[in-house]
Amino acid sequence: MSTRRGGRRPGKPDTREAILTAARTTFAERGFDAASIRAIATAAGVDPALVHHYFGTKEELFRATVAIPIDPAELLPGVLAGGPDEVGARLVRTFLTVWDSPVGTAAVALLRSAVNNEWTARLLREFLVTQVLRRVLDRLDLDPAETPLRGALVGAQMAGLAMMRYVIRLEPIASAAPETLVAAIGPTVQRYVTGPLDAA
Amino acid sequence: MSTRRGGRRPGKPDTREAILTAARTTFAERGFDAASIRAIATAAGVDPALVHHYFGTKEELFRATVAIPIDPAELLPGVLAGGPDEVGARLVRTFLTVWDSPVGTAAVALLRSAVNNEWTARLLREFLVTQVLRRVLDRLDLDPAETPLRGALVGAQMAGLAMMRYVIRLEPIASAAPETLVAAIGPTVQRYVTGPLDAA
Repeated sequence: MSTRRGGRRPGKPDTREAILTAARTTFAERGFDAASIRAIATAAGVDPALVHHYFGTKEELFRATVAIPIDPAELLPGVLAGGPDEVGARLVRTFLTVWDSPVGTAAVALLRSAVNNEWTARLLREFLVTQVLRRVLDRLDLDPAETPLRGALVGAQMAGLAMMRYVIRLEPIASAAPETLVAAIGPTVQRYVTGPLDAA
Repeated sequence: MSTRRGGRRPGKPDTREAILTAARTTFAERGFDAASIRAIATAAGVDPALVHHYFGTKEELFRATVAIPIDPAELLPGVLAGGPDEVGARLVRTFLTVWDSPVGTAAVALLRSAVNNEWTARLLREFLVTQVLRRVLDRLDLDPAETPLRGALVGAQMAGLAMMRYVIRLEPIASAAPETLVAAIGPTVQRYVTGPLDAA
């Protein structure tokens, strides 16, 4: 796991922490795209090479700031593998596989924190848009004018599923078999990604 | 507003508070259906008549415990008015009208609190199921075996919409015109209420 880089090459804990704090602030203030490693290094008072040394790429540093131990880039090829017509069901299935696993505990913690902290909310929003939604939608040859709304709709459906299954624990969603939810929610996500966005 | 009953007939503030505290505990522990006014009165150390005097019906007392100033029972006839085929769009439209209004601030506060507090989560779950979802679904002549899942799916979609529009503020959902969201999300809610729940 790339967030363990610091574990393999310990360095000074204060330097790591200073970089993480600077990264959190910079990503939240400027957004993922506009935040540069150079700006983060300057804010932390270290050389940019040290940021790469501890945290790897900007994506990896970003995941470390939001404490997300999985790399969406590794999961997305599987989601996209079946082509555009399969993407709804595969997205819901992959989402449940991750959140039902021990990693899901970190995801639930992030969701709780985002609800109560404006900065975490900004980081989560950036993470969703740049690391997950844009990556899926950019590969599907859709009308670029529509992709932001499509992405946000998928995000809303998935956030609501996470809320009900893991936080509010509303039955029968809380203990439903994953495939029950894939069958029920997959077509929704499919329509949000490739279907018409006005009334059918 | 029925939560103002105490305002019209002040009484002792401690008595009101004692009843509210007992109600919150009893509703969270037993659920709305099993919690009786008698049990709440006993827990508060007062006469049941006093509970009715301060808070009116069990529904009104329940709304006071979750600090929700609107009565879903007043809104639902409008949602159901166009018959089952209109229910998806009308539900989303009514939801946005309430949450976009000043009352929405209380709803967002409740959502935030439910995410971080197990008891508030239980109360919110009870509120959703007994005061909103069941009331809509019971009037639509559906297979009773399916209604709990249908209700939970509607709840998940609406909770996700609320998260993205009011809490995480993900664009373009955060500032979209209500009718854009009604057109995009209405068909989803419609399918969750009346459509097939397995893959189309």
